[in-house]
Amino acid sequence: MAYTQRIPVRFDDVDYAQIVYFPRLFGYCHWVFEDFFAKEVGHSYAQVLSKRRIAFPTVHSEADFQAPLRFGDVCRVVMDTVKLSKRSIANRYRLYLGETQRLCAKLELVTVPVGLDDFKPVELPEDIRVAFLNHLVGLTV
Amino acid sequence: MAYTQRIPVRFDDVDYAQIVYFPRLFGYCHWVFEDFFAKEVGHSYAQVLSKRRIAFPTVHSEADFQAPLRFGDVCRVVMDTVKLSKRSIANRYRLYLGETQRLCAKLELVTVPVGLDDFKPVELPEDIRVAFLNHLVGLTV
Amino acid sequence: MAYTQRIPVRFDDVDYAQIVYFPRLFGYCHWVFEDFFAKEVGHSYAQVLSKRRIAFPTVHSEADFQAPLRFGDVCRVVMDTVKLSKRSIANRYRLYLGETQRLCAKLELVTVPVGLDDFKPVELPEDIRVAFLNHLVGLTV
Amino acid sequence: MAYTQRIPVRFDDVDYAQIVYFPRLFGYCHWVFEDFFAKEVGHSYAQVLSKRRIAFPTVHSEADFQAPLRFGDVCRVVMDTVKLSKRSIANRYRLYLGETQRLCAKLELVTVPVGLDDFKPVELPEDIRVAFLNHLVGLTV
Repeated sequence: MAYTQRIPVRFDDVDYAQIVYFPRLFGYCHWVFEDFFAKEVGHSYAQVLSKRRIAFPTVHSEADFQAPLRFGDVCRVVMDTVKLSKRSIANRYRLYLGETQRLCAKLELVTVPVGLDDFKPVELPEDIRVAFLNHLVGLTV
Repeated sequence: MAYTQRIPVRFDDVDYAQIVYFPRLFGYCHWVFEDFFAKEVGHSYAQVLSKRRIAFPTVHSEADFQAPLRFGDVCRVVMDTVKLSKRSIANRYRLYLGETQRLCAKLELVTVPVGLDDFKPVELPEDIRVAFLNHLVGLTV
Repeated sequence: MAYTQRIPVRFDDVDYAQIVYFPRLFGYCHWVFEDFFAKEVGHSYAQVLSKRRIAFPTVHSEADFQAPLRFGDVCRVVMDTVKLSKRSIANRYRLYLGETQRLCAKLELVTVPVGLDDFKPVELPEDIRVAFLNHLVGLTV
Repeated sequence: MAYTQRIPVRFDDVDYAQIVYFPRLFGYCHWVFEDFFAKEVGHSYAQVLSKRRIAFPTVHSEADFQAPLRFGDVCRVVMDTVKLSKRSIANRYRLYLGETQRLCAKLELVTVPVGLDDFKPVELPEDIRVAFLNHLVGLTV
């Protein structure tokens, strides 16, 4: 089951071409990833980072940008997990124009849990793994 | 022959984990793409957009992030063109830590020329095509 | 009566010192200003700009930053209008740490309505003037 | 004697109104403040923060925004110190359109040295104080 969140396109999210500056779309996905923790893991992203000293750097991304988003639009982000292991999470984010089926962008981001202080890989804590597992559309590796 | 540009990692480029926030790296690549115009095309990116009414939205990206960049580092961006046609430009950006051979990230961005006012595809102007051709490492499609 | 809105401090809102990068606080205020339109004027900021061709550049600001905001905090922004005329709006934004009375920052921003296309001063439309008037704590000039 | 630095206005620095988003101008000033350290103090801002564990939060600002800066413009920032004590630095930043005398914005920012780890006020190190003193236009407090 996908996790959905809506993000309003802000006055300053657009560039000179008056469409959302594409690096910002990666930021939208990260905001959704952040909020997922409070809502689905039960601990805020800030708590996980500061208390458990774990970070989630992105190690790989692939993205298709099909249609522009503009100031005043609502970006509906539909996230699901496409691959999950003890060492990494691959999430797919589909960005739609408001409540329509118009797909504006599709991003896949692979993140790995590391120690916040030394950036060495660590195992994904069980409660976090389960939260993403609930949104898995593929197979667990 | 690759096109090289250096970008200092700023105080505000890093996130809570004190490494460059990964969407910002796409921004670094875009800055290099912008500056390429003034230096290699002979017309600034701003001039091309405002006078010729052409924009260059990114339609596809792939990226690997291998090592973090930190506040105070210099990010050396080495850009070359990996695919070029009348309708699209695919550039590869390798991001190194300062003057070392430590590769921090590798991004490939595909952009297409469109009309700034209607976002409909247009042909790549010849002077722009030639500038990227000079930095092509692959084959022209 | 003040207008209140809550903004979560994001992972990328903080700088190397791990507090909200102070220019971002001006951005927080602008987001509140934007959302005020949909909620209190009855037309979204995007609609006002794109349909009525009016923009609201900031011409003056004064700010005191008293305490840092950190990743994971909620920034409670309390906006009221301190001066209002047909040609300008002065809003005060008090930024509190969550639901506490701890004042982190106080910003005053003066904006003027201008034509979006020529940036020449225009009169504040009546519905917009009334919306801010409802939140005025000082006297109308 | 003023300290001068030039900043190109980027494709993504502008907002929907196609002028530099005003919070970004505070960022421009901060970039100038950062670079001042390497050039005039002799130690980079990153070194001062990470090695000496001192940070420089902004505690007060005043700004006038007189004319817009647009994509493709060069913003010439002229910084001088208007007030200096062992506990604070007040810098004035005048932002000009390229090499013209057209003043686009004038910002005054007061920063105080604090411990990076506890945010408690500390004395301004002598080499940093002297560097700003060399650019003082007012009187030392």
